[in-house]
Amino acid sequence: MAQTVSVKNIGLRGVTVADTKISFIDGNKGILIYRGYRIEELAERSTFPETAFLLLHGYLPSTEELKVFAGKIVEEAVVEDYVYDCLKKLPRVSNPMDVLQASVPLLAMSDPDLYDESRSANVRMATRLIARLPVVVAAWHRIRNGLEPLPYDKSLTHAGNFLWLLTGDKPDQQTAKDFDCCLILHADHTFNASTFACRGVCSTRAHMYSAVSAGVGALSGSLHGGANTKVMEMLLKIETEPDIELWIKNQIESGQKIMGLGHAVYKTMDPRAKFLRPMATRLGKARNMEKWDNLSKLVEKFSVEEFDRRGKSEIKPNVDFYSAPVYFMMGIPKDLFTPIFAISRIAGWCSHIIEEKFGEAQEKPMLYRPQAEYVGNYCGLMGCEYSPLPER
Amino acid sequence: MAQTVSVKNIGLRGVTVADTKISFIDGNKGILIYRGYRIEELAERSTFPETAFLLLHGYLPSTEELKVFAGKIVEEAVVEDYVYDCLKKLPRVSNPMDVLQASVPLLAMSDPDLYDESRSANVRMATRLIARLPVVVAAWHRIRNGLEPLPYDKSLTHAGNFLWLLTGDKPDQQTAKDFDCCLILHADHTFNASTFACRGVCSTRAHMYSAVSAGVGALSGSLHGGANTKVMEMLLKIETEPDIELWIKNQIESGQKIMGLGHAVYKTMDPRAKFLRPMATRLGKARNMEKWDNLSKLVEKFSVEEFDRRGKSEIKPNVDFYSAPVYFMMGIPKDLFTPIFAISRIAGWCSHIIEEKFGEAQEKPMLYRPQAEYVGNYCGLMGCEYSPLPER
Repeated sequence: MAQTVSVKNIGLRGVTVADTKISFIDGNKGILIYRGYRIEELAERSTFPETAFLLLHGYLPSTEELKVFAGKIVEEAVVEDYVYDCLKKLPRVSNPMDVLQASVPLLAMSDPDLYDESRSANVRMATRLIARLPVVVAAWHRIRNGLEPLPYDKSLTHAGNFLWLLTGDKPDQQTAKDFDCCLILHADHTFNASTFACRGVCSTRAHMYSAVSAGVGALSGSLHGGANTKVMEMLLKIETEPDIELWIKNQIESGQKIMGLGHAVYKTMDPRAKFLRPMATRLGKARNMEKWDNLSKLVEKFSVEEFDRRGKSEIKPNVDFYSAPVYFMMGIPKDLFTPIFAISRIAGWCSHIIEEKFGEAQEKPMLYRPQAEYVGNYCGLMGCEYSPLPER
Repeated sequence: MAQTVSVKNIGLRGVTVADTKISFIDGNKGILIYRGYRIEELAERSTFPETAFLLLHGYLPSTEELKVFAGKIVEEAVVEDYVYDCLKKLPRVSNPMDVLQASVPLLAMSDPDLYDESRSANVRMATRLIARLPVVVAAWHRIRNGLEPLPYDKSLTHAGNFLWLLTGDKPDQQTAKDFDCCLILHADHTFNASTFACRGVCSTRAHMYSAVSAGVGALSGSLHGGANTKVMEMLLKIETEPDIELWIKNQIESGQKIMGLGHAVYKTMDPRAKFLRPMATRLGKARNMEKWDNLSKLVEKFSVEEFDRRGKSEIKPNVDFYSAPVYFMMGIPKDLFTPIFAISRIAGWCSHIIEEKFGEAQEKPMLYRPQAEYVGNYCGLMGCEYSPLPER
C-alpha cells in the first residue's frame, strides 16, 4: 500500500502528492489552466472577483451570481477596530509580510463561522479573507507612515479599491484594470510551496485562517513570492551600472541567480509574464517611466542570451520578473509586492483548503504525515551512550 | 530522476520525503529517539533545556554548555511591550492557538537576527522562541482574565516558570519536574504535520518565525496537537455518564473516534504515554483528584478491550491521552493544552528548520514544490468553452 520514494527527490520535486481539480500547469508548453479555463482567456475577459468565484466554486458565475459575490466582497471589506489597534502598536519598520502573517489569525478572532465546518461556512470565510486582506495590507502601509486607514470606496472595483486604500488617490480606469489583471494572473498556481503549506496545515482540521497564515509565511520566502521584491531590488541596483550586459554576465558566471528568471515548473516563458510584459510597456509610456520598462527588457535580453550561450535556453522570465516593474510604476513600494501576491493568491489558497478539507478531488481527506529517512545517530552507537551531566 | 508516486498515498502516508538526523520512531516497537538517545533516558535523566540543546546542536551539552544555554533562556524570556499591548487589544474569547500563531510573527518584528542567515543566528532565534513562547502563552491567559502578565522568576526552572507565569503560584518541586518531563516528551516527533509545515515554509527561505507560525497553525488541528484538548473535553463529558463502558462501545460502534487512542505511526503503546500514565496517578493522589486518573484508566481499559474485540489491538493510548488529565490536574485550563504542546515542540520545530535551511541531513536544501495530478476540467471540453458574462 504505502510506497517509499527515493530520498533523492529532495523538495518533493516530481513527486505527485494529491489529486486536484483546481488548476493545471504544462510547464513545457507554458500552459496554465484554472478550473478548465486558460489563463489567457481569464486575463483578457474576466475580472478578479469572477476568477475568485471560479476557483472557489468550480464554474464561471452567471451575471446574477457574480453580482451577489462581488457585492459580498464589498460588504465584507471591513476590518474590526481591534485589528487596527494592534497594527498601531507594532514597530513601524516591521516587514509587511510579518504583519500580514500575524493579521490573518487576528482576523480569525472575529469570524462568526470559524468553527462551522460546512463547505458554505468555508466559502464565507474565504470571501471575507479575499475582501479583507487588501484592507489590512493597505492599512498597515498607512499606519506605518503615520496615516489613518481609509474607508473602502464602493464606487471602485476590488482592484481599484486596493490602490485607493493604499495611496489615497483614485486610480484611473486603465490602471485599475491592469491591477485587476495582475490579481487574476497570480490567483492560483497548483501545488506551489504556499498552497502546499495551506493544504498540509488544514489537513490537521485546523481552521481556514490557520492554514492561510501558514501560506503567507511560505509566500514570504525569496524562492517563492518574495522574489518579486528581489527583482525590484535588482533593477534599482543595476540602474546605475555603466555596463548592464557585463553585470549580468558576471552574475551568471559567478553562479548567482538573476531574480525573476527561471521557474521550478516552466521550461519556457511563463504564460503570466506574457501579459505583464506589455503591461510594463504601457505603464512606462503612460507614466513617463519608460526607463524601468527599458531596463527590464535589457535585463531579459542579456540574461536570456547568456543562458542560451550556456545551453540553458529554458530559463525565461517568470511572473515575478515583470510584476516588479509593473507594481513599481503603479507607485507601490517594493516591500508590498509580496503582500500583493498574497491578496491575489488568497483566492487559490482558500479554494485548495476547501478541496483538501472536503476531499473534493480524491477519495477522502487525510492528515499529511510523511516519513523521513533517519540518517542520524543510534542509541548505544557512535558515542550515544547516555552519560549523566557531571560525567560529560 | 523524478519519480511519480501513486496518488493513492493520500496524506503522504508511507512516503519518505527527506533525510533527517533529528529523531527516529519505530512505530511497531514503540521506540522514539532524539539525536541517538531513547526518549526514556531523556525523560528520566535530562531536563527540557538539556533536551532542547541536544535537538538544536546534535549532542548532549557539557555542564558548562548547559549552564550557558539555560542562562540564555532565562535572559531571553522577556517580551517587548508592543506584544503585550497587542494582546490587550484582542477579543478576550480568542482561541489561545490563534493568539499564539499571531504572536510568533509579532515576536519576529523585534528580533535583531531576523535577516541573518547564519546557523548561529538561527540558533539564537530558536533560543529566543524557546524562551518566549511560554511567556506569551501565560501572558495571554492573564490578559484574557483581566490580569497583568507576571515577570519571569529566575529562581525557578524554565518549566516551573511557565506554571508561575500562568497561575501566579510557585509550583512545588515535583510538579515543576513533572511539567519539565512533559516538555521533554513533546519536544520532537520527526515529520509530523506541524514539523513538515515548518520545513516546507522555511524551504522557501522564509525566516524561522514564518515557519514556526505555520507550525503553530498545523498543531492547532484536532488531528494533531489539538487532540489533547479534545481528550479533556471527552473526559469532562463522560464524567457524569452512568455507564462508561456502554458509552465507549456506542462511540466505537457508531464509527466515532475515542480521542487520544490510536496514532498514525505507533502500532503499540506510545512510549511517551508510558511516562504520562504514572504521572497522572501520582498527581491524582497528590492533589486529591484521583477521580480524573481513575476515569482515564477506565476509558483506556474499556476502549482497548473493545478495539481488541474488533481485531484492532494496535489502538493504544497516545501522548495526548494522558497529557490531558496531567495538565488538568496541574490546574491548567483545557484550551491551553495545545499551546503547551507548542512551547515544548518549539525545540523540535526550530531544530528541523535549521536542518532544512542548512541541508544538514541531505545533499542540499531545496524548495518544496510537489506535483499534483490534475483531475479537473480542460479547456474546450466538458463545458469549459469560455463564454462572456452576458451569455451565461
